[in-house]
Amino acid sequence: MMSVYHTKINIKSTGENDIIDITDDIQDCINKSTLINGICCVYVPGSTGTISTIEYEPGLQYDVPKMLDNIAPKNQKYKHHETWHDDNGRSHCKATLMGPGITIPFQNNTLIYGTWQQIVFIELDTSPRKRSIIIQIIGE
Amino acid sequence: MMSVYHTKINIKSTGENDIIDITDDIQDCINKSTLINGICCVYVPGSTGTISTIEYEPGLQYDVPKMLDNIAPKNQKYKHHETWHDDNGRSHCKATLMGPGITIPFQNNTLIYGTWQQIVFIELDTSPRKRSIIIQIIGE
Amino acid sequence: MMSVYHTKINIKSTGENDIIDITDDIQDCINKSTLINGICCVYVPGSTGTISTIEYEPGLQYDVPKMLDNIAPKNQKYKHHETWHDDNGRSHCKATLMGPGITIPFQNNTLIYGTWQQIVFIELDTSPRKRSIIIQIIGE
Repeated sequence: MMSVYHTKINIKSTGENDIIDITDDIQDCINKSTLINGICCVYVPGSTGTISTIEYEPGLQYDVPKMLDNIAPKNQKYKHHETWHDDNGRSHCKATLMGPGITIPFQNNTLIYGTWQQIVFIELDTSPRKRSIIIQIIGE
Repeated sequence: MMSVYHTKINIKSTGENDIIDITDDIQDCINKSTLINGICCVYVPGSTGTISTIEYEPGLQYDVPKMLDNIAPKNQKYKHHETWHDDNGRSHCKATLMGPGITIPFQNNTLIYGTWQQIVFIELDTSPRKRSIIIQIIGE
Repeated sequence: MMSVYHTKINIKSTGENDIIDITDDIQDCINKSTLINGICCVYVPGSTGTISTIEYEPGLQYDVPKMLDNIAPKNQKYKHHETWHDDNGRSHCKATLMGPGITIPFQNNTLIYGTWQQIVFIELDTSPRKRSIIIQIIGE
């Protein structure tokens, strides 16, 4: 019998480029849903963060932010700053590029991912933030 | 009772880098579906446009296209142009990078997104286009 | 009656930047599912590959990897290499940027995509790999 299970993961980021492993939290949500097979939509309601997967080790936690800084550099003028006298134009640009979330399959109560792959939230904003990640599970 | 609701949003872009806010159109689709809780897949059937989220204000409508032009510059040779004598190699490259769509949760008949976050279609092609955005809603 | 259909597509890549058209394979999975309308989640369980859409022609198979090399250059130091004495830091960076998968709607047993749009796996790792692409279909 198919149904929808809705919940949230509440996290605090330490600031720009904080990459937080939420793989086990998402698995906990699947456990609580009691759904066996389906998909899990992991989604940030906000325009300065993103969800992706990564091999969660310290080297890539340096390399990925460096790549993102090449794409939308810190030391560059953004028109966004003129709108709000804000400082996070680069954060918005990176978030639009990467998208607000991903959808992950699960089977036999178990989230599917590779041995060297974790699901992460990436803080793109310029200061620490509290984040509620939406978890929408569809399955049977 | 779970079901699938299929519809389209028809829009016209004014040309390259036109960013069109479709948040209210998607909410209308959810209303018409009469589904209460679920997910909404927003998808472009085409290889020169994309869907993402953004804080919809004029500054970022300048900053995001500028970032994308740094990634796949206008003034650069593309082998794609040799295949079709086309001029939109950069459009294809950006669309493949950003992907054809996103999946958004909804709960209590209401699409979930942040206060400063809108759902947008981004025209990446080099001339104005008519676009039919596919909306596939799964819910109960 | 809604249900979930789970399967895999097994492919072999020839190495870095191999772009493999899996559109027909995904359509075959939808046929086998016997589901009529719904969504199909196409997902790589691994941190050095991605799924997207592209106009599948030789020009773009050169242009897209070139764009990706500008984003995460081959000739650059990656801290990831210090962690594992590995050579694929750029592969991980690109995969995190592009995400592990996409979700595609289907209607009347038919995957929805544009005339000049195919669904592809992109090998981002530095050597040939066997890949099992997860196909999770939700529909009625």
